[in-house]
Amino acid sequence: MSTGTEATAQAAPGLPEIAAAARRLDGHAQRTPLLRFPELDRRLGCRAFVKPECLQITGSFKFRGAYNKIRAAQEKGALPGVVAFSSGNHAQGVAAAAAQLGVKAIIVMPADAPRIKRDNTLGWGADVVPYDRYREDREAIARGIAAEKGYVVVPPYDDPAIIAGQGTIGLEILEDMAKLGLKPDAVLAPCSGGGLVSGIAIAVKMQHPAARVFACEPAEFDDTARSLAAGRRLENTGDARSICDALMSKSPGLITFEINRRLLSGALTATDDEALSAIAFAARWMKLVLEPGGAVGLAAALQGRVPQPAENIVIVASGGNVDDDMLRRALDKPNQG
Amino acid sequence: MSTGTEATAQAAPGLPEIAAAARRLDGHAQRTPLLRFPELDRRLGCRAFVKPECLQITGSFKFRGAYNKIRAAQEKGALPGVVAFSSGNHAQGVAAAAAQLGVKAIIVMPADAPRIKRDNTLGWGADVVPYDRYREDREAIARGIAAEKGYVVVPPYDDPAIIAGQGTIGLEILEDMAKLGLKPDAVLAPCSGGGLVSGIAIAVKMQHPAARVFACEPAEFDDTARSLAAGRRLENTGDARSICDALMSKSPGLITFEINRRLLSGALTATDDEALSAIAFAARWMKLVLEPGGAVGLAAALQGRVPQPAENIVIVASGGNVDDDMLRRALDKPNQG
Repeated sequence: MSTGTEATAQAAPGLPEIAAAARRLDGHAQRTPLLRFPELDRRLGCRAFVKPECLQITGSFKFRGAYNKIRAAQEKGALPGVVAFSSGNHAQGVAAAAAQLGVKAIIVMPADAPRIKRDNTLGWGADVVPYDRYREDREAIARGIAAEKGYVVVPPYDDPAIIAGQGTIGLEILEDMAKLGLKPDAVLAPCSGGGLVSGIAIAVKMQHPAARVFACEPAEFDDTARSLAAGRRLENTGDARSICDALMSKSPGLITFEINRRLLSGALTATDDEALSAIAFAARWMKLVLEPGGAVGLAAALQGRVPQPAENIVIVASGGNVDDDMLRRALDKPNQG
Repeated sequence: MSTGTEATAQAAPGLPEIAAAARRLDGHAQRTPLLRFPELDRRLGCRAFVKPECLQITGSFKFRGAYNKIRAAQEKGALPGVVAFSSGNHAQGVAAAAAQLGVKAIIVMPADAPRIKRDNTLGWGADVVPYDRYREDREAIARGIAAEKGYVVVPPYDDPAIIAGQGTIGLEILEDMAKLGLKPDAVLAPCSGGGLVSGIAIAVKMQHPAARVFACEPAEFDDTARSLAAGRRLENTGDARSICDALMSKSPGLITFEINRRLLSGALTATDDEALSAIAFAARWMKLVLEPGGAVGLAAALQGRVPQPAENIVIVASGGNVDDDMLRRALDKPNQG
């Protein structure tokens, strides 16, 4: 498999590709700020920065990769449409990016996906193609549509343009910290297939190699943690469960794992309960609404899991698409200091 | 009283004072972004921008004015300490600014103030002096402390340095819109004593006179609306009630009203119920936690109360210090489109 590894290593974007993504996103994606919260500093005993991608268009970072992928495809020639498979944040990111770029979008989504997610995707003008999640293969359906219509598939993470788009978050973090004369010692980003954390790792490590970048995962979906330890891609068990619906990929991606095993300093985990407490902390002290998957980095940090020393910690809060009931459950957590 | 009016008109800060405040705040206050939310555009039928001051240090815009006031006093000579009277956002803003600037702070606060507000203020290292809100005069107590100790009083709104500090929000709005090649047609800011909206009005109208700036008030605390209509400062009735605890001043300020009657295009109101619905909208669609008083501008806009035509509307979401129960009450509101 060494040729496969080389091929995927070559597929990894570099700084120039991430810089190109940043130029494409300029004026189209939200330039999220780098926020400080004294109470967070106090709890962590360090200087903590939060990158609130819950404020990104569609409520998660997914818009960045999707926009970069679709725009890059447009630059290569006429693009009749795009197709993606997702029931969650990626679906909305693709639908919104396609709408901004005037491209048709088809989202392959489970027939039993929550109404709100289907409606939000339809709200962006995308067509939704339902499938039976127990009997049909969504990737095969998406590829079939792409072949038939000449559409481009927008994968959720294992794609150089997607990774480069998410990597713009890393560029912005370094830019904003440089204005303060600072550099990050540790950067925490939620991880499922690994597109977000791999893109950030490239942007950060290529400019500031001493920084340590950590993938943050739900405790029951710690495939990246185990894969990094084993040196090869491992899967989650079929009976793994989590409220972090955005972080439930079966295993690390091929391309993303090749990047992550070279660049990451490790992976941290948080339980569902810790994610809920982090959502409550974010609402109370940061005035931000986070979803469970968007809060695992914050949760790991609040649990004191960032390896020391780390004077300047950056936490990527990757999304805020949580339903009312889950937010209420979080607010049931005590406000403990 | 014409000499009084002239004196207060002369006390109004101009653009240079607001620019000086921006220089003082640079690197110390949070530079909040100007956010876009497609669902908000859709509901309002225009291009809407949100300035989320709930993300400001201490969870409200109050830090800006307090920091500018204390720093400006320091520049004039040694400053042993400051004193303020407030149980809410101003108390935290003064305490945090004083802490950053290494100045002692005493906050005169009702003995029956909510524990959490007292604790947050103490958390910034301020001393809290309790008073009996039914029998004692908090301003007199604050002035007594100032006279005895040589401290400077930091008033909540009726002060040129406070107004200039809040006005930096207006500068940032115009700067960020200019990057997009846009100018605001209407700017909505919550209003109690009027420090926030008067500062913003100066910054906006002095640079872009065609913009219309509106004060937004709770329906039962519409003293600025009535005062603007009458051409003189009117008070709220003693039995007025609102959940907007940040917006319950008795009447417009002297200096702020002189500014507001020259520069505002009017005042809009929102009921408590509309404020709650706006909090729910912000949590669901903007991923921001707002307090009732911080949400009245958004509420007025969502109710369709911005006079047309207004293609580019800016809504200042001034604070997010809401307790869990109020946030839960808001989430009981239906998600109506």
